[in-house]
Amino acid sequence: MSATYKRLDKDDAVLLMVDHQSGLISLVQDFSPDEFRNNVLALADIGVFFELPTILTTSFDAGPNGPIVPEMLDRFPDAPFIRRPGQINAWDNEDFVKAIKATGRKQLIIAGVVTDVCVSFPALSAIEDGYDVFVVTDASGTFNKTVQQAAWQRMSSAGVQLMNWFSVACELHRDWRNDMEGLGALLSNHLPNYRNLMTSYTKLQEAKKE
Amino acid sequence: MSATYKRLDKDDAVLLMVDHQSGLISLVQDFSPDEFRNNVLALADIGVFFELPTILTTSFDAGPNGPIVPEMLDRFPDAPFIRRPGQINAWDNEDFVKAIKATGRKQLIIAGVVTDVCVSFPALSAIEDGYDVFVVTDASGTFNKTVQQAAWQRMSSAGVQLMNWFSVACELHRDWRNDMEGLGALLSNHLPNYRNLMTSYTKLQEAKKE
Amino acid sequence: MSATYKRLDKDDAVLLMVDHQSGLISLVQDFSPDEFRNNVLALADIGVFFELPTILTTSFDAGPNGPIVPEMLDRFPDAPFIRRPGQINAWDNEDFVKAIKATGRKQLIIAGVVTDVCVSFPALSAIEDGYDVFVVTDASGTFNKTVQQAAWQRMSSAGVQLMNWFSVACELHRDWRNDMEGLGALLSNHLPNYRNLMTSYTKLQEAKKE
Amino acid sequence: MSATYKRLDKDDAVLLMVDHQSGLISLVQDFSPDEFRNNVLALADIGVFFELPTILTTSFDAGPNGPIVPEMLDRFPDAPFIRRPGQINAWDNEDFVKAIKATGRKQLIIAGVVTDVCVSFPALSAIEDGYDVFVVTDASGTFNKTVQQAAWQRMSSAGVQLMNWFSVACELHRDWRNDMEGLGALLSNHLPNYRNLMTSYTKLQEAKKE
Amino acid sequence: MSATYKRLDKDDAVLLMVDHQSGLISLVQDFSPDEFRNNVLALADIGVFFELPTILTTSFDAGPNGPIVPEMLDRFPDAPFIRRPGQINAWDNEDFVKAIKATGRKQLIIAGVVTDVCVSFPALSAIEDGYDVFVVTDASGTFNKTVQQAAWQRMSSAGVQLMNWFSVACELHRDWRNDMEGLGALLSNHLPNYRNLMTSYTKLQEAKKE
Amino acid sequence: MSATYKRLDKDDAVLLMVDHQSGLISLVQDFSPDEFRNNVLALADIGVFFELPTILTTSFDAGPNGPIVPEMLDRFPDAPFIRRPGQINAWDNEDFVKAIKATGRKQLIIAGVVTDVCVSFPALSAIEDGYDVFVVTDASGTFNKTVQQAAWQRMSSAGVQLMNWFSVACELHRDWRNDMEGLGALLSNHLPNYRNLMTSYTKLQEAKKE
Amino acid sequence: MSATYKRLDKDDAVLLMVDHQSGLISLVQDFSPDEFRNNVLALADIGVFFELPTILTTSFDAGPNGPIVPEMLDRFPDAPFIRRPGQINAWDNEDFVKAIKATGRKQLIIAGVVTDVCVSFPALSAIEDGYDVFVVTDASGTFNKTVQQAAWQRMSSAGVQLMNWFSVACELHRDWRNDMEGLGALLSNHLPNYRNLMTSYTKLQEAKKE
Amino acid sequence: MSATYKRLDKDDAVLLMVDHQSGLISLVQDFSPDEFRNNVLALADIGVFFELPTILTTSFDAGPNGPIVPEMLDRFPDAPFIRRPGQINAWDNEDFVKAIKATGRKQLIIAGVVTDVCVSFPALSAIEDGYDVFVVTDASGTFNKTVQQAAWQRMSSAGVQLMNWFSVACELHRDWRNDMEGLGALLSNHLPNYRNLMTSYTKLQEAKKE
Repeated sequence: MSATYKRLDKDDAVLLMVDHQSGLISLVQDFSPDEFRNNVLALADIGVFFELPTILTTSFDAGPNGPIVPEMLDRFPDAPFIRRPGQINAWDNEDFVKAIKATGRKQLIIAGVVTDVCVSFPALSAIEDGYDVFVVTDASGTFNKTVQQAAWQRMSSAGVQLMNWFSVACELHRDWRNDMEGLGALLSNHLPNYRNLMTSYTKLQEAKKE
Repeated sequence: MSATYKRLDKDDAVLLMVDHQSGLISLVQDFSPDEFRNNVLALADIGVFFELPTILTTSFDAGPNGPIVPEMLDRFPDAPFIRRPGQINAWDNEDFVKAIKATGRKQLIIAGVVTDVCVSFPALSAIEDGYDVFVVTDASGTFNKTVQQAAWQRMSSAGVQLMNWFSVACELHRDWRNDMEGLGALLSNHLPNYRNLMTSYTKLQEAKKE
Repeated sequence: MSATYKRLDKDDAVLLMVDHQSGLISLVQDFSPDEFRNNVLALADIGVFFELPTILTTSFDAGPNGPIVPEMLDRFPDAPFIRRPGQINAWDNEDFVKAIKATGRKQLIIAGVVTDVCVSFPALSAIEDGYDVFVVTDASGTFNKTVQQAAWQRMSSAGVQLMNWFSVACELHRDWRNDMEGLGALLSNHLPNYRNLMTSYTKLQEAKKE
Repeated sequence: MSATYKRLDKDDAVLLMVDHQSGLISLVQDFSPDEFRNNVLALADIGVFFELPTILTTSFDAGPNGPIVPEMLDRFPDAPFIRRPGQINAWDNEDFVKAIKATGRKQLIIAGVVTDVCVSFPALSAIEDGYDVFVVTDASGTFNKTVQQAAWQRMSSAGVQLMNWFSVACELHRDWRNDMEGLGALLSNHLPNYRNLMTSYTKLQEAKKE
Repeated sequence: MSATYKRLDKDDAVLLMVDHQSGLISLVQDFSPDEFRNNVLALADIGVFFELPTILTTSFDAGPNGPIVPEMLDRFPDAPFIRRPGQINAWDNEDFVKAIKATGRKQLIIAGVVTDVCVSFPALSAIEDGYDVFVVTDASGTFNKTVQQAAWQRMSSAGVQLMNWFSVACELHRDWRNDMEGLGALLSNHLPNYRNLMTSYTKLQEAKKE
Repeated sequence: MSATYKRLDKDDAVLLMVDHQSGLISLVQDFSPDEFRNNVLALADIGVFFELPTILTTSFDAGPNGPIVPEMLDRFPDAPFIRRPGQINAWDNEDFVKAIKATGRKQLIIAGVVTDVCVSFPALSAIEDGYDVFVVTDASGTFNKTVQQAAWQRMSSAGVQLMNWFSVACELHRDWRNDMEGLGALLSNHLPNYRNLMTSYTKLQEAKKE
Repeated sequence: MSATYKRLDKDDAVLLMVDHQSGLISLVQDFSPDEFRNNVLALADIGVFFELPTILTTSFDAGPNGPIVPEMLDRFPDAPFIRRPGQINAWDNEDFVKAIKATGRKQLIIAGVVTDVCVSFPALSAIEDGYDVFVVTDASGTFNKTVQQAAWQRMSSAGVQLMNWFSVACELHRDWRNDMEGLGALLSNHLPNYRNLMTSYTKLQEAKKE
Repeated sequence: MSATYKRLDKDDAVLLMVDHQSGLISLVQDFSPDEFRNNVLALADIGVFFELPTILTTSFDAGPNGPIVPEMLDRFPDAPFIRRPGQINAWDNEDFVKAIKATGRKQLIIAGVVTDVCVSFPALSAIEDGYDVFVVTDASGTFNKTVQQAAWQRMSSAGVQLMNWFSVACELHRDWRNDMEGLGALLSNHLPNYRNLMTSYTKLQEAKKE
């Protein structure tokens, strides 16, 4: 019994960054702060690199949840930015869903804070509406590992695909030859050990030329 | 292939608190005692806040298992309280099932001690009887993480949805505007870091007014 | 979509203890030795208590794998004991399968060493032959947690139910009133903290009588 | 070679609560938020129960570090509260040291956020000035376990005694008969499993009387 | 509901070793380096022992990813070795798929670095093309446990079977009598504690003969 | 700079078992219940085996702390058993210290519940009084690992030697030839994997004789 | 018995960055790569911010160990850079020790890769030569946590002070008022959750002004 | 206060390999079997490489403890091999101490199984007799991490230096130039990721020459 491989396609994918707000992020404890920040920015850089239509949304960003982290606005100055007045599930916000529909795309790449609510709820709603949903597990954070695992299981059972930012990048890119330097720079910026490999390699190549 | 999103609805949900007894809780080691107590009380407060029909049950509470923890009776003084004379699976107790049927609701939110028995058995029975079942993983405890994981897997494979108390609250609430202060108070009481966000925010708002 | 609850029935269950041999057990590192020994003996005591037809089997027990641990022979002196001459999957041994068929039962409770092979292989074969299979995760051991998790996932995907010895006991027993003292003794012998609850309770009851 | 037992004495001890501010606490990740909140409040309740002279201090509490958590002011409305204008090491603040000297006591019980700075620095300074210093490890938090361990080691090497809130309470109390109900209440409020023991015990005692 | 047991068959299986390159392996942190090296070599030795058709592939091995580790070339000097010029998913490389088809076999045993990309992508593609896919979890490595778990879940949901090198060896071998010394040597070389069992056993057998 | 090796001597050692009570033990979470029970009983068996003068003590054993676990009374029916009326530090109880002095011995082996109080306090007092103190870390339990580590550090800094039950047994025994079967039985009863080694060995020896 | 507080002084401290080379860093597994990179750069930024005399050194940087990571050269273009021709312990290299002596300072802040060798050896040598040594534990990495712990213990026993980059910054800075914005920027760049606190705070301050 | 750096000197060091026997090693669970085997062999290879006088000893190697692992005899065919007839502490065996004295050396490098007994006891005895003792923590194994930590603490408090095999190698070697290829080969054989660095480097160097 074979299954269809739901494969990310850069011409059919939308990136949804949900509730990466300064207050909410301080609740995240299933990743170390350094790792989480790096993962979120890596995913944002993927959106920029592949020119994915990207939609930002926040929940109550004038209150304790805090404003969206400025790195999002820097990277996506022109993206639709839906500041939800109260809906917890972004899918309950018409503007958010309209913004998605306006892209005409059917693959949703979702990351957010917290995983069990801000990611999970729209992911489940989107599945119901017929979208293919790819949750970026390491750019989504929550209170602790136990909550993380339960949320993953609920989403996976409903048909959500669990990915990580690196596999999103690779599945979108398909072939290094599409832009070798571009992908290399992306990896170098967000994978310290890959950067080290490149540093060692480049040094030796330079030595070679001498 | 899209799937229906089984979404908690505060008008269709019942809360079942199974065997949160003083003796049995002392067996729980997959959560630290502080975390577990907080999670259980958070879930109970959710029941009160959303005015969910709630059913309490215990197993042999005059013996070593110990009495129900008093916080349950305090919060749910009028709830049906089924003291099972021997049935391990609460679903084998007619009064328990009758109490559920009397609510006319089809969504069961279950938490209890221990996860692999007192939660898992009625959850599986309820699925078979056509209910939608939502197990609150972090308000349910057991002997260790290995037992926890096996029990989660068994329930998930049978169609149980794994949730945590925070996502239960958010899925029931739907929109902050339904009762902003109420939900805020609930979170503040049970999420220390959310309380901190509110403390910082309020202080700055006050300073602003001066 | 409701699912049938595959529920252990003491009149339809067989206990299969696979390769609990002194050499092989020394390979187990996903449980501490104290925990593992306790879990295995608890499961064996369950077999005795519920008078389950029980089948023992070993692999090459005259070689480095070592003999079956003596506690098995002590508890099940009359059980069929299949010393496999070479088959790794016990299901490939005709005598083993015949011994199961001879019981006329359809629910298989399996535990063994190592989980990914000695448990997993016959579990998958039995599923294919139409049995209901219940693997006792904490009475089955293997090299490390990573191997354990992969083996659990493979079995669960094929329809195996993952349980632990305590939930097996409770699901078989159904109602404390069937034998209160018997189950109490079983738990007291294998759950140190339950024994503590009973000690405290008994002491206070005695004080009461004075 | 015998050593003097530096033993807490409720008539010679001062409690120093350093920088338990709403912003700083959100940085703590070496304890779960529930555990940390409980530990800090338990220590504060110890201060109240033993009527220890208590000194509160904060660092920049009008800025991002946030205000002192309100529970401190509630419990210690009359305590000296030193809002440091800039000194990172509270010992560099003259008012803070004066407040300590004013008590005439020589045993300092210190807890704070973060362990490696706000606790460690004054602890080391106090040792140098001849005080006996007792750091409450579980009411002091920091970024992660690695930082925690290095800070503990640095302090311990300098002669700081590492304790936890429960051992502080017990060493101050000396004998249950000094106030059985008082200590019982303290433990019941902050040790969920001790509360469970008391619930079971009380229930059985009541049953006895009937 | 019974399921077919997809069982490895040494006459129908192909071994695919994907991107075990000196640079990429240095990125692996979900296994300790000693464990990972041992697991990879154990799997390679399985390929040799069972004379499985084996296909090697690398990604950009003249760049920072580094050359294939020499142990692969030593063990499989005649295997097809596909040095992919850019395709990230090996299945996108025609030569790679052709080499598999040329074997006429339908069971793919896949291991590689990193799990979430170099293993996961061809595994999902192969499922779609009707192959049975067995991923060797402990001979595949990636950045951390969180990424590992998400990748396992994605593959498992698509029908991939998760195995470990030891279970692969045992499922292929079926019966110790097929080559007792051969399998014994394989285990002795890669399971230090099994080697210890054999050492103890052999010593005692020798003593016996004297 | 050489240091004197403080070495346990079976003719100079006393065993102090402090507060191993059914209620208090249920608070222990730095060991799994199975491990902890095994460790405590192993240490008790060491006391019996080496005929060490042994002193039992409890704190409030008619209240929630619960009675001493019956295994202690079974093993040491004639030992001084000091039921402290209120002193938390057993060293504050004159009868306890007198019982120790009556033995004329200077080496104290201490284990108890909880480590940071019931063990730590008398250990520190005894050091001050000139005794050599050996705390049995794995037969002493407390709330969690963090508390355990702080308590160990406090005691170690004061000159307490940290040991485990196995090293206590070996240091007292000195030479297997003093009683080979006796020590073998002790280890076999409390080290499951050592029991396995003996099972394998004995079986092969028997086979040899045939 | 009071001890002198060895306190970092920005006018007496030297920063030694030892062997942060692209190859060697890829061996580090006691920190996640993201955390380690952040910690190392934070420490380097501390050196720049406090204008500490800084000395760089590498071991065999033309070979497999790889070149120094470029971020070091960027931050310290004029620092003495000792490329050791073979000495493993940097203290065995005369130029390195001379460079330190040339600063006339007596407090050494050391970080490097790997902790147990490249950090530990010069730290122990420097202690012997009368320096005060402060090892930055989280900017020093090694093979795994076990090696880390043994190395810390060895150094701590010899009188090395174990610190982390954050406590180094705070101990050097002494008082926020010395440069509030400077320290704020340093923390914001390397503590994601502190950055979040500042984002929330600034936003609210801005709102206030409106 | 400066301390003398006790530094390993290849002309003053002896290597003591204590009880690395096939049965005893199967008890080790504080390291994975692959890691432990690698660490032990790495240390043995260090002995060979630096031509250290080496002494082997076993305890009851004809019984359940099992024979010495053959790799030791292979590497040290001419080393004194003391098969102790019963003494648990090797230092109690006169032949063992004589063999050490015969070397005229004063630095003892000790590793063995189990850490808390077979390593700890002779280490403490040797300190008392005036030797400098270096325990190789990662080539010494025991039952679990808790036992490991207590044993480390006991030894460290007595003046034992805790090292790991890699730091032993580096401290003995002092300078790469003493034998660059020799040390490189040693590291390559026992540090998989260092081998990877060398593989990448060599490949690039070869490419350079073409």
